[in-house]
Amino acid sequence: MDRPDIADRDLAAFVAVAEAASDAAGAVIRPYFRSGLGADLKGDQSPVTAADRGAEQAMRAVLVAHFPDHGILGEEFGTKNPGARLRWVLDPIDGTRAFITGRPVFGSLVALLDGDRPIVGVIDQPVTGERWVGVAGQQTRFRGSFGGKVGGRACSSLEQAELSCTSPEMFGNNLTGWQRLTAAAGRTSFGGDCYAYGLLALGQIDVIAEADLKIWDWAAIVPVVEGAGGRMTDWDGAPLRADGDGRAVAVGDPALLAPTLALLAG
Amino acid sequence: MDRPDIADRDLAAFVAVAEAASDAAGAVIRPYFRSGLGADLKGDQSPVTAADRGAEQAMRAVLVAHFPDHGILGEEFGTKNPGARLRWVLDPIDGTRAFITGRPVFGSLVALLDGDRPIVGVIDQPVTGERWVGVAGQQTRFRGSFGGKVGGRACSSLEQAELSCTSPEMFGNNLTGWQRLTAAAGRTSFGGDCYAYGLLALGQIDVIAEADLKIWDWAAIVPVVEGAGGRMTDWDGAPLRADGDGRAVAVGDPALLAPTLALLAG
Repeated sequence: MDRPDIADRDLAAFVAVAEAASDAAGAVIRPYFRSGLGADLKGDQSPVTAADRGAEQAMRAVLVAHFPDHGILGEEFGTKNPGARLRWVLDPIDGTRAFITGRPVFGSLVALLDGDRPIVGVIDQPVTGERWVGVAGQQTRFRGSFGGKVGGRACSSLEQAELSCTSPEMFGNNLTGWQRLTAAAGRTSFGGDCYAYGLLALGQIDVIAEADLKIWDWAAIVPVVEGAGGRMTDWDGAPLRADGDGRAVAVGDPALLAPTLALLAG
Repeated sequence: MDRPDIADRDLAAFVAVAEAASDAAGAVIRPYFRSGLGADLKGDQSPVTAADRGAEQAMRAVLVAHFPDHGILGEEFGTKNPGARLRWVLDPIDGTRAFITGRPVFGSLVALLDGDRPIVGVIDQPVTGERWVGVAGQQTRFRGSFGGKVGGRACSSLEQAELSCTSPEMFGNNLTGWQRLTAAAGRTSFGGDCYAYGLLALGQIDVIAEADLKIWDWAAIVPVVEGAGGRMTDWDGAPLRADGDGRAVAVGDPALLAPTLALLAG
Protein backbone atom coordinates (compact mmCIF):
# COMPACT_ATOMS: atom_id res chain seq x y z
CA MET A 1 0.00 0.00 0.00
CA ASP A 2 1.39 3.42 -0.95
CA ARG A 3 2.50 5.87 1.67
CA PRO A 4 -0.23 8.42 2.36
CA ASP A 5 0.22 12.06 1.38
CA ILE A 6 0.63 13.17 4.97
CA ALA A 7 3.73 14.38 6.84
CA ASP A 8 5.42 11.62 8.82
CA ARG A 9 5.15 13.65 12.01
CA ASP A 10 1.40 14.07 11.58
CA LEU A 11 0.93 10.42 10.75
CA ALA A 12 2.84 9.37 13.88
CA ALA A 13 0.60 11.64 15.96
CA PHE A 14 -2.53 10.08 14.42
CA VAL A 15 -1.26 6.60 15.27
CA ALA A 16 -0.48 7.57 18.85
CA VAL A 17 -3.94 9.03 19.35
CA ALA A 18 -5.59 6.02 17.68
CA GLU A 19 -3.82 3.82 20.24
CA ALA A 20 -4.89 6.14 23.07
CA ALA A 21 -8.50 5.84 21.88
CA SER A 22 -8.14 2.03 21.90
CA ASP A 23 -6.75 2.20 25.43
CA ALA A 24 -9.74 4.27 26.54
CA ALA A 25 -12.20 1.83 24.95
CA GLY A 26 -10.53 -1.15 26.59
CA ALA A 27 -10.73 0.44 30.03
CA VAL A 28 -14.49 0.79 29.61
CA ILE A 29 -15.04 -2.67 28.13
CA ARG A 30 -13.01 -4.94 30.43
CA PRO A 31 -15.23 -4.66 33.54
CA TYR A 32 -18.30 -5.64 31.48
CA PHE A 33 -16.74 -8.79 30.01
CA ARG A 34 -18.36 -11.91 31.51
CA SER A 35 -20.20 -9.75 34.00
CA GLY A 36 -23.43 -11.57 33.22
CA LEU A 37 -25.02 -8.64 31.45
CA GLY A 38 -27.95 -9.44 29.18
CA ALA A 39 -28.12 -8.55 25.53
CA ASP A 40 -30.26 -5.49 24.89
CA LEU A 41 -32.19 -6.68 21.86
CA LYS A 42 -33.19 -3.75 19.70
CA GLY A 43 -35.52 -3.82 16.70
CA ASP A 44 -32.89 -5.27 14.39
CA GLN A 45 -31.93 -7.97 16.95
CA SER A 46 -28.42 -6.56 17.22
CA PRO A 47 -27.24 -6.54 20.83
CA VAL A 48 -26.26 -3.12 22.07
CA THR A 49 -24.54 -3.16 25.39
CA ALA A 50 -23.55 -0.55 27.90
CA ALA A 51 -19.96 -1.50 27.12
CA ASP A 52 -20.38 -0.67 23.46
CA ARG A 53 -21.85 2.75 24.09
CA GLY A 54 -19.53 3.69 26.92
CA ALA A 55 -16.49 2.67 24.93
CA GLU A 56 -17.50 4.71 21.89
CA GLN A 57 -18.02 7.77 24.09
CA ALA A 58 -14.57 7.25 25.64
CA MET A 59 -12.95 6.96 22.18
CA ARG A 60 -14.74 10.06 20.91
CA ALA A 61 -13.57 12.07 23.93
CA VAL A 62 -9.93 11.20 23.18
CA LEU A 63 -10.24 12.02 19.48
CA VAL A 64 -12.11 15.31 19.95
CA ALA A 65 -9.57 16.47 22.53
CA HIS A 66 -6.70 15.99 20.07
CA PHE A 67 -8.31 16.69 16.69
CA PRO A 68 -11.48 18.77 17.06
CA ASP A 69 -11.72 19.39 13.30
CA HIS A 70 -11.52 15.76 12.22
CA GLY A 71 -14.63 13.84 11.29
CA ILE A 72 -15.88 10.95 13.44
CA LEU A 73 -18.18 8.13 12.38
CA GLY A 74 -19.24 5.61 15.01
CA GLU A 75 -21.78 2.82 14.98
CA GLU A 76 -23.55 4.05 18.11
CA PHE A 77 -23.39 7.84 18.06
CA GLY A 78 -23.46 8.83 14.39
CA THR A 79 -21.36 11.32 12.46
CA LYS A 80 -19.43 14.48 13.41
CA ASN A 81 -17.85 16.82 10.82
CA PRO A 82 -18.89 14.58 7.91
CA GLY A 83 -17.19 16.79 5.30
CA ALA A 84 -13.71 16.59 6.87
CA ARG A 85 -10.85 15.10 4.79
CA LEU A 86 -9.62 13.14 7.80
CA ARG A 87 -12.34 11.01 9.42
CA TRP A 88 -12.14 8.55 12.30
CA VAL A 89 -14.26 5.42 12.04
CA LEU A 90 -15.02 3.55 15.28
CA ASP A 91 -16.43 0.19 16.30
CA PRO A 92 -15.98 -0.26 20.05
CA ILE A 93 -17.01 -3.94 20.08
CA ASP A 94 -16.66 -5.73 16.77
CA GLY A 95 -17.82 -9.25 17.48
CA THR A 96 -20.72 -8.53 19.84
CA ARG A 97 -21.74 -12.20 19.75
CA ALA A 98 -18.25 -13.25 20.95
CA PHE A 99 -18.31 -10.57 23.63
CA ILE A 100 -21.72 -11.61 24.95
CA THR A 101 -20.81 -15.29 25.07
CA GLY A 102 -17.51 -14.57 26.85
CA ARG A 103 -15.14 -15.53 24.03
CA PRO A 104 -12.06 -13.27 24.07
CA VAL A 105 -12.00 -12.95 20.28
CA PHE A 106 -13.90 -9.69 19.74
CA GLY A 107 -12.08 -6.40 19.16
CA SER A 108 -12.21 -2.64 19.41
CA LEU A 109 -11.63 -0.98 16.05
CA VAL A 110 -10.26 2.50 15.38
CA ALA A 111 -9.55 3.65 11.83
CA LEU A 112 -8.52 6.93 10.23
CA LEU A 113 -9.66 7.61 6.66
CA ASP A 114 -7.95 10.10 4.36
CA GLY A 115 -10.85 10.80 2.03
CA ASP A 116 -12.09 7.30 1.23
CA ARG A 117 -8.84 5.55 2.04
CA PRO A 118 -8.10 3.95 5.43
CA ILE A 119 -4.57 5.01 6.40
CA VAL A 120 -4.47 3.95 10.08
CA GLY A 121 -6.17 0.95 11.68
CA VAL A 122 -5.99 -0.47 15.20
CA ILE A 123 -7.47 -3.85 16.13
CA ASP A 124 -7.38 -4.15 19.91
CA GLN A 125 -8.41 -7.13 22.03
CA PRO A 126 -8.87 -5.49 25.42
CA VAL A 127 -9.17 -8.68 27.46
CA THR A 128 -6.12 -10.54 26.18
CA GLY A 129 -4.09 -7.36 25.64
CA GLU A 130 -3.39 -8.16 21.99
CA ARG A 131 -3.15 -5.25 19.55
CA TRP A 132 -2.51 -4.90 15.82
CA VAL A 133 -1.56 -1.47 14.43
CA GLY A 134 -1.67 -0.96 10.66
CA VAL A 135 -0.45 2.18 8.90
CA ALA A 136 -0.54 2.70 5.13
CA GLY A 137 2.96 2.25 3.70
CA GLN A 138 4.33 0.61 6.87
CA GLN A 139 4.75 -2.90 8.24
CA THR A 140 1.93 -3.84 10.61
CA ARG A 141 2.92 -3.98 14.29
CA PHE A 142 1.57 -6.61 16.70
CA ARG A 143 1.90 -6.97 20.43
CA GLY A 144 0.53 -9.80 22.51
CA SER A 145 1.51 -12.36 25.09
CA PHE A 146 0.21 -15.43 23.20
CA GLY A 147 2.86 -15.31 20.48
CA GLY A 148 2.52 -14.60 16.79
CA LYS A 149 4.64 -12.80 14.18
CA VAL A 150 3.36 -10.37 11.55
CA GLY A 151 3.28 -11.62 7.97
CA GLY A 152 0.81 -13.51 5.81
CA ARG A 153 1.66 -17.16 5.25
CA ALA A 154 2.96 -18.10 1.80
CA CYS A 155 0.08 -20.12 0.35
CA SER A 156 -0.51 -20.02 -3.38
CA SER A 157 -3.21 -22.71 -3.61
CA LEU A 158 -6.70 -22.69 -2.15
CA GLU A 159 -6.40 -26.44 -1.55
CA GLN A 160 -3.79 -25.68 1.10
CA ALA A 161 -5.61 -22.67 2.47
CA GLU A 162 -7.14 -22.10 5.88
CA LEU A 163 -10.46 -20.34 5.17
CA SER A 164 -12.57 -18.49 7.71
CA CYS A 165 -15.67 -16.36 8.20
CA THR A 166 -17.53 -15.16 11.27
CA SER A 167 -20.66 -17.21 10.56
CA PRO A 168 -22.11 -18.95 7.51
CA GLU A 169 -25.39 -17.21 8.39
CA MET A 170 -24.02 -13.85 7.23
CA PHE A 171 -24.12 -14.65 3.51
CA GLY A 172 -27.81 -14.48 2.62
CA ASN A 173 -28.02 -14.36 -1.19
CA ASN A 174 -24.26 -14.82 -1.42
CA LEU A 175 -24.27 -18.28 0.14
CA THR A 176 -23.54 -20.20 -3.08
CA GLY A 177 -20.35 -18.19 -3.62
CA TRP A 178 -19.25 -19.01 -0.08
CA GLN A 179 -20.11 -22.68 -0.59
CA ARG A 180 -17.97 -22.89 -3.74
CA LEU A 181 -15.09 -21.37 -1.78
CA THR A 182 -15.44 -23.67 1.22
CA ALA A 183 -15.58 -26.71 -1.09
CA ALA A 184 -12.28 -25.65 -2.69
CA ALA A 185 -10.43 -24.62 0.47
CA GLY A 186 -8.36 -27.01 2.54
CA ARG A 187 -10.15 -26.27 5.79
CA THR A 188 -12.77 -23.87 7.15
CA SER A 189 -13.27 -22.35 10.58
CA PHE A 190 -15.84 -19.96 11.99
CA GLY A 191 -15.89 -17.11 14.46
CA GLY A 192 -13.61 -14.24 15.11
CA ASP A 193 -14.86 -11.10 13.38
CA CYS A 194 -11.92 -8.61 13.33
CA TYR A 195 -9.80 -10.99 15.42
CA ALA A 196 -9.72 -13.44 12.52
CA TYR A 197 -8.24 -10.75 10.27
CA GLY A 198 -5.60 -10.17 12.94
CA LEU A 199 -4.80 -13.89 12.77
CA LEU A 200 -4.58 -13.64 8.97
CA ALA A 201 -2.01 -10.87 9.48
CA LEU A 202 -0.06 -13.36 11.65
CA GLY A 203 -0.14 -16.10 9.00
CA GLN A 204 -2.59 -18.32 10.93
CA ILE A 205 -5.48 -17.92 8.46
CA ASP A 206 -5.07 -17.59 4.69
CA VAL A 207 -8.44 -16.41 3.35
CA ILE A 208 -11.45 -14.67 4.89
CA ALA A 209 -14.63 -14.01 2.89
CA GLU A 210 -17.55 -12.17 4.43
CA ALA A 211 -20.70 -10.32 3.48
CA ASP A 212 -22.73 -7.57 5.05
CA LEU A 213 -19.77 -5.62 6.47
CA LYS A 214 -20.20 -1.94 7.27
CA ILE A 215 -17.43 0.65 6.98
CA TRP A 216 -16.74 0.44 10.73
CA ASP A 217 -16.23 -3.31 10.35
CA TRP A 218 -13.53 -3.09 7.65
CA ALA A 219 -11.88 0.37 7.82
CA ALA A 220 -9.42 -0.54 10.59
CA ILE A 221 -8.71 -3.96 9.13
CA VAL A 222 -7.51 -2.90 5.67
CA PRO A 223 -4.24 -1.23 6.87
CA VAL A 224 -3.52 -4.16 9.23
CA VAL A 225 -3.93 -6.78 6.48
CA GLU A 226 -2.11 -4.81 3.79
CA GLY A 227 0.72 -3.86 6.16
CA ALA A 228 1.23 -7.60 6.74
CA GLY A 229 1.68 -8.16 2.99
CA GLY A 230 -1.91 -9.26 2.34
CA ARG A 231 -4.77 -7.85 0.29
CA MET A 232 -8.28 -6.83 1.25
CA THR A 233 -10.88 -5.93 -1.39
CA ASP A 234 -14.55 -6.28 -2.25
CA TRP A 235 -15.74 -9.39 -4.12
CA ASP A 236 -14.84 -7.70 -7.45
CA GLY A 237 -11.25 -7.06 -6.36
CA ALA A 238 -11.80 -3.30 -5.95
CA PRO A 239 -11.04 -1.28 -2.80
CA LEU A 240 -13.77 -1.44 -0.17
CA ARG A 241 -16.00 1.65 -0.18
CA ALA A 242 -18.37 3.23 2.32
CA ASP A 243 -21.17 2.92 -0.26
CA GLY A 244 -20.20 -0.61 -1.34
CA ASP A 245 -22.27 -3.77 -0.95
CA GLY A 246 -20.50 -4.99 2.19
CA ARG A 247 -18.91 -8.07 0.62
CA ALA A 248 -15.23 -8.34 1.57
CA VAL A 249 -12.30 -10.68 0.96
CA ALA A 250 -8.92 -10.75 2.67
CA VAL A 251 -5.94 -12.93 1.75
CA GLY A 252 -2.58 -13.29 3.47
CA ASP A 253 -0.81 -14.30 0.25
CA PRO A 254 -1.79 -11.99 -2.67
CA ALA A 255 -1.60 -15.02 -5.01
CA LEU A 256 -4.83 -16.29 -3.42
CA LEU A 257 -6.88 -13.23 -4.35
CA ALA A 258 -7.68 -14.07 -7.99
CA PRO A 259 -8.76 -17.71 -7.41
CA THR A 260 -10.81 -16.67 -4.39
CA LEU A 261 -12.65 -13.94 -6.29
CA ALA A 262 -13.28 -16.30 -9.21
CA LEU A 263 -14.98 -18.87 -6.96
CA LEU A 264 -17.07 -16.27 -5.15
CA ALA A 265 -18.28 -14.89 -8.51
CA GLY A 266 -19.16 -18.36 -9.80
CA MET B 1 -24.89 -35.29 40.16
CA ASP B 2 -24.52 -37.83 42.99
CA ARG B 3 -21.31 -38.16 44.92
CA PRO B 4 -19.20 -41.01 43.59
CA ASP B 5 -18.62 -44.14 45.64
CA ILE B 6 -14.98 -43.26 46.29
CA ALA B 7 -13.28 -42.07 49.48
CA ASP B 8 -12.92 -38.29 49.65
CA ARG B 9 -9.18 -38.58 50.14
CA ASP B 10 -8.82 -40.70 47.00
CA LEU B 11 -11.02 -38.36 45.01
CA ALA B 12 -8.95 -35.35 46.08
CA ALA B 13 -5.79 -37.15 44.95
CA PHE B 14 -7.36 -37.92 41.57
CA VAL B 15 -8.26 -34.25 41.10
CA ALA B 16 -4.76 -33.09 42.03
CA VAL B 17 -3.18 -35.49 39.55
CA ALA B 18 -5.68 -34.52 36.85
CA GLU B 19 -4.60 -30.92 37.32
CA ALA B 20 -0.93 -31.95 37.23
CA ALA B 21 -1.58 -33.74 33.94
CA SER B 22 -3.20 -30.57 32.57
CA ASP B 23 -0.19 -28.55 33.68
CA ALA B 24 2.12 -30.96 31.87
CA ALA B 25 0.06 -30.77 28.69
CA GLY B 26 0.02 -26.97 28.76
CA ALA B 27 3.79 -26.78 29.10
CA VAL B 28 4.13 -28.83 25.91
CA ILE B 29 1.42 -26.99 23.99
CA ARG B 30 2.23 -23.33 24.67
CA PRO B 31 5.45 -23.08 22.63
CA TYR B 32 3.66 -24.50 19.56
CA PHE B 33 0.78 -22.03 19.64
CA ARG B 34 1.06 -19.58 16.71
CA SER B 35 4.48 -20.96 15.89
CA GLY B 36 3.53 -21.23 12.23
CA LEU B 37 3.41 -25.00 12.25
CA GLY B 38 1.50 -26.59 9.39
CA ALA B 39 -1.36 -29.00 9.79
CA ASP B 40 -0.31 -32.60 9.31
CA LEU B 41 -3.20 -33.84 7.20
CA LYS B 42 -3.72 -37.55 7.72
CA GLY B 43 -6.06 -39.84 5.82
CA ASP B 44 -9.14 -38.61 7.64
CA GLN B 45 -8.11 -34.96 7.16
CA SER B 46 -7.84 -34.43 10.88
CA PRO B 47 -4.82 -32.32 11.76
CA VAL B 48 -2.41 -34.03 14.06
CA THR B 49 0.25 -31.79 15.42
CA ALA B 50 3.42 -32.32 17.33
CA ALA B 51 1.78 -30.41 20.17
CA ASP B 52 -1.09 -32.88 20.35
CA ARG B 53 1.15 -35.92 20.52
CA GLY B 54 3.73 -34.42 22.84
CA ALA B 55 1.04 -33.23 25.24
CA GLU B 56 -0.65 -36.63 25.39
CA GLN B 57 2.69 -38.28 26.16
CA ALA B 58 3.31 -35.74 28.93
CA MET B 59 -0.13 -36.37 30.45
CA ARG B 60 0.30 -40.15 30.28
CA ALA B 61 3.67 -39.89 32.03
CA VAL B 62 2.08 -38.02 34.95
CA LEU B 63 -0.82 -40.46 35.24
CA VAL B 64 1.26 -43.63 34.99
CA ALA B 65 3.65 -42.34 37.64
CA HIS B 66 0.80 -41.86 40.13
CA PHE B 67 -1.67 -44.58 39.20
CA PRO B 68 0.03 -47.37 37.25
CA ASP B 69 -3.03 -49.65 37.51
CA HIS B 70 -5.57 -47.16 36.15
CA GLY B 71 -6.73 -47.36 32.57
CA ILE B 72 -5.83 -44.65 30.05
CA LEU B 73 -7.60 -43.85 26.81
CA GLY B 74 -6.16 -41.12 24.60
CA GLU B 75 -6.96 -39.99 21.09
CA GLU B 76 -3.38 -40.33 19.87
CA PHE B 77 -1.86 -43.27 21.71
CA GLY B 78 -4.73 -45.68 22.30
CA THR B 79 -5.70 -47.66 25.36
CA LYS B 80 -3.82 -48.92 28.45
CA ASN B 81 -5.40 -51.28 31.05
CA PRO B 82 -8.78 -51.24 29.28
CA GLY B 83 -10.45 -53.43 31.94
CA ALA B 84 -9.68 -51.12 34.86
CA ARG B 85 -12.58 -49.68 36.86
CA LEU B 86 -10.91 -46.25 36.92
CA ARG B 87 -9.95 -45.01 33.49
CA TRP B 88 -8.44 -41.67 32.40
CA VAL B 89 -9.65 -40.20 29.15
CA LEU B 90 -7.45 -37.60 27.45
CA ASP B 91 -7.74 -35.11 24.65
CA PRO B 92 -4.64 -32.91 24.66
CA ILE B 93 -6.00 -30.41 22.11
CA ASP B 94 -9.77 -30.31 21.80
CA GLY B 95 -10.43 -27.69 19.15
CA THR B 96 -7.59 -28.43 16.78
CA ARG B 97 -9.04 -25.99 14.24
CA ALA B 98 -8.97 -23.17 16.82
CA PHE B 99 -5.42 -24.13 17.82
CA ILE B 100 -4.15 -24.15 14.23
CA THR B 101 -5.74 -20.81 13.39
CA GLY B 102 -4.33 -19.20 16.54
CA ARG B 103 -7.62 -18.70 18.40
CA PRO B 104 -7.12 -19.16 22.18
CA VAL B 105 -10.39 -21.07 22.58
CA PHE B 106 -9.21 -24.69 22.37
CA GLY B 107 -8.61 -26.77 25.48
CA SER B 108 -6.77 -29.72 27.01
CA LEU B 109 -9.17 -32.26 28.45
CA VAL B 110 -8.52 -34.73 31.25
CA ALA B 111 -11.31 -36.94 32.59
CA LEU B 112 -11.53 -39.80 35.04
CA LEU B 113 -14.25 -42.42 34.53
CA ASP B 114 -15.52 -44.70 37.29
CA GLY B 115 -16.88 -47.48 35.13
CA ASP B 116 -18.87 -45.60 32.52
CA ARG B 117 -19.40 -42.49 34.62
CA PRO B 118 -17.14 -39.41 34.38
CA ILE B 119 -16.37 -38.33 37.95
CA VAL B 120 -13.55 -35.82 37.36
CA GLY B 121 -13.10 -33.44 34.43
CA VAL B 122 -10.58 -30.68 33.76
CA ILE B 123 -10.94 -28.22 30.89
CA ASP B 124 -7.71 -26.26 30.62
CA GLN B 125 -6.91 -23.39 28.26
CA PRO B 126 -3.12 -23.38 28.40
CA VAL B 127 -2.59 -20.08 26.59
CA THR B 128 -4.97 -17.87 28.58
CA GLY B 129 -4.44 -19.77 31.83
CA GLU B 130 -8.15 -20.48 32.31
CA ARG B 131 -9.14 -23.77 33.95
CA TRP B 132 -12.42 -25.44 34.87
CA VAL B 133 -12.37 -28.37 37.33
CA GLY B 134 -15.49 -30.49 37.65
CA VAL B 135 -15.96 -33.26 40.24
CA ALA B 136 -19.10 -35.38 40.60
CA GLY B 137 -21.09 -34.18 43.60
CA GLN B 138 -19.15 -30.91 43.92
CA GLN B 139 -19.47 -27.34 42.68
CA THR B 140 -17.31 -26.74 39.61
CA ARG B 141 -14.24 -24.56 40.22
CA PHE B 142 -12.99 -21.98 37.70
CA ARG B 143 -9.85 -19.88 37.64
CA GLY B 144 -8.97 -17.30 35.04
CA SER B 145 -7.90 -13.70 34.63
CA PHE B 146 -10.69 -12.67 32.22
CA GLY B 147 -13.47 -12.86 34.80
CA GLY B 148 -16.42 -15.20 35.01
CA LYS B 149 -18.29 -16.91 37.85
CA VAL B 150 -19.43 -20.54 37.94
CA GLY B 151 -23.15 -21.15 37.51
CA GLY B 152 -25.50 -21.66 34.59
CA ARG B 153 -27.67 -18.67 33.76
CA ALA B 154 -31.36 -18.93 34.70
CA CYS B 155 -33.07 -19.19 31.32
CA SER B 156 -36.27 -21.16 31.04
CA SER B 157 -37.20 -20.26 27.44
CA LEU B 158 -35.34 -21.12 24.25
CA GLU B 159 -36.41 -17.76 22.82
CA GLN B 160 -34.14 -16.08 25.35
CA ALA B 161 -31.36 -18.63 24.99
CA GLU B 162 -27.85 -18.20 23.68
CA LEU B 163 -27.23 -21.30 21.52
CA SER B 164 -23.86 -22.53 20.30
CA CYS B 165 -22.07 -25.28 18.44
CA THR B 166 -18.54 -25.67 17.14
CA SER B 167 -19.54 -25.66 13.48
CA PRO B 168 -22.79 -26.26 11.59
CA GLU B 169 -20.77 -28.60 9.37
CA MET B 170 -20.58 -31.21 12.16
CA PHE B 171 -24.24 -32.27 11.91
CA GLY B 172 -24.41 -34.35 8.75
CA ASN B 173 -27.74 -36.23 8.82
CA ASN B 174 -28.71 -34.38 12.00
CA LEU B 175 -28.77 -30.96 10.37
CA THR B 176 -32.56 -30.56 10.35
CA GLY B 177 -32.70 -31.04 14.14
CA TRP B 178 -30.05 -28.36 14.56
CA GLN B 179 -31.91 -26.04 12.18
CA ARG B 180 -35.13 -26.40 14.20
CA LEU B 181 -33.19 -25.51 17.32
CA THR B 182 -31.42 -22.50 15.83
CA ALA B 183 -34.75 -21.19 14.49
CA ALA B 184 -36.23 -21.35 18.01
CA ALA B 185 -33.26 -19.99 19.94
CA GLY B 186 -32.71 -16.30 20.60
CA ARG B 187 -29.23 -16.20 19.15
CA THR B 188 -26.60 -18.60 17.79
CA SER B 189 -22.81 -18.49 17.80
CA PHE B 190 -20.14 -20.83 16.49
CA GLY B 191 -16.73 -22.01 17.55
CA GLY B 192 -15.33 -23.04 20.84
CA ASP B 193 -15.32 -26.82 21.23
CA CYS B 194 -14.77 -27.56 24.95
CA TYR B 195 -14.23 -23.87 25.68
CA ALA B 196 -17.88 -23.17 24.83
CA TYR B 197 -18.97 -25.69 27.47
CA GLY B 198 -16.74 -23.85 29.92
CA LEU B 199 -18.59 -20.64 29.02
CA LEU B 200 -21.90 -22.44 29.53
CA ALA B 201 -20.68 -23.33 33.04
CA LEU B 202 -20.09 -19.57 33.55
CA GLY B 203 -23.60 -18.63 32.40
CA GLN B 204 -22.45 -17.04 29.12
CA ILE B 205 -24.04 -19.66 26.86
CA ASP B 206 -27.34 -21.43 27.58
CA VAL B 207 -27.51 -24.37 25.17
CA ILE B 208 -24.95 -26.34 23.16
CA ALA B 209 -25.96 -29.06 20.74
CA GLU B 210 -23.36 -31.06 18.85
CA ALA B 211 -22.98 -34.27 16.91
CA ASP B 212 -20.09 -36.59 16.21
CA LEU B 213 -18.46 -36.26 19.65
CA LYS B 214 -16.13 -38.99 20.84
CA ILE B 215 -15.72 -40.02 24.48
CA TRP B 216 -12.55 -37.92 24.80
CA ASP B 217 -14.57 -34.88 23.63
CA TRP B 218 -17.28 -35.13 26.30
CA ALA B 219 -15.94 -37.10 29.29
CA ALA B 220 -14.20 -34.12 30.94
CA ILE B 221 -17.06 -31.78 30.12
CA VAL B 222 -19.89 -33.63 31.87
CA PRO B 223 -18.63 -33.05 35.46
CA VAL B 224 -17.85 -29.39 34.68
CA VAL B 225 -21.35 -28.71 33.30
CA GLU B 226 -23.21 -30.69 35.96
CA GLY B 227 -21.10 -29.21 38.77
CA ALA B 228 -22.26 -25.78 37.55
CA GLY B 229 -25.90 -26.81 37.90
CA GLY B 230 -26.40 -27.73 34.24
CA ARG B 231 -27.20 -30.95 32.43
CA MET B 232 -25.38 -32.82 29.68
CA THR B 233 -26.95 -35.79 27.90
CA ASP B 234 -27.32 -37.43 24.51
CA TRP B 235 -30.13 -36.32 22.17
CA ASP B 236 -32.51 -38.74 23.92
CA GLY B 237 -31.83 -37.27 27.35
CA ALA B 238 -29.79 -40.28 28.49
CA PRO B 239 -26.25 -40.18 29.90
CA LEU B 240 -23.54 -40.03 27.24
CA ARG B 241 -21.92 -43.40 26.59
CA ALA B 242 -18.67 -44.52 25.03
CA ASP B 243 -20.66 -46.60 22.54
CA GLY B 244 -23.27 -43.88 21.90
CA ASP B 245 -23.93 -42.07 18.64
CA GLY B 246 -21.90 -38.98 19.50
CA ARG B 247 -24.85 -36.58 19.68
CA ALA B 248 -24.67 -34.39 22.78
CA VAL B 249 -26.64 -31.58 24.40
CA ALA B 250 -25.66 -29.35 27.29
CA VAL B 251 -27.86 -26.79 29.04
CA GLY B 252 -27.00 -24.32 31.79
CA ASP B 253 -30.57 -24.23 33.12
CA PRO B 254 -32.06 -27.75 33.43
CA ALA B 255 -35.45 -26.31 32.37
CA LEU B 256 -34.07 -25.96 28.84
CA LEU B 257 -33.31 -29.66 28.42
CA ALA B 258 -36.78 -30.94 27.52
CA PRO B 259 -37.65 -28.26 24.91
CA THR B 260 -34.19 -28.60 23.38
CA LEU B 261 -34.46 -32.38 23.06
CA ALA B 262 -37.97 -32.07 21.60
CA LEU B 263 -36.78 -29.76 18.82
CA LEU B 264 -33.75 -31.89 18.01
CA ALA B 265 -35.98 -34.97 17.72
CA GLY B 266 -38.47 -33.16 15.46
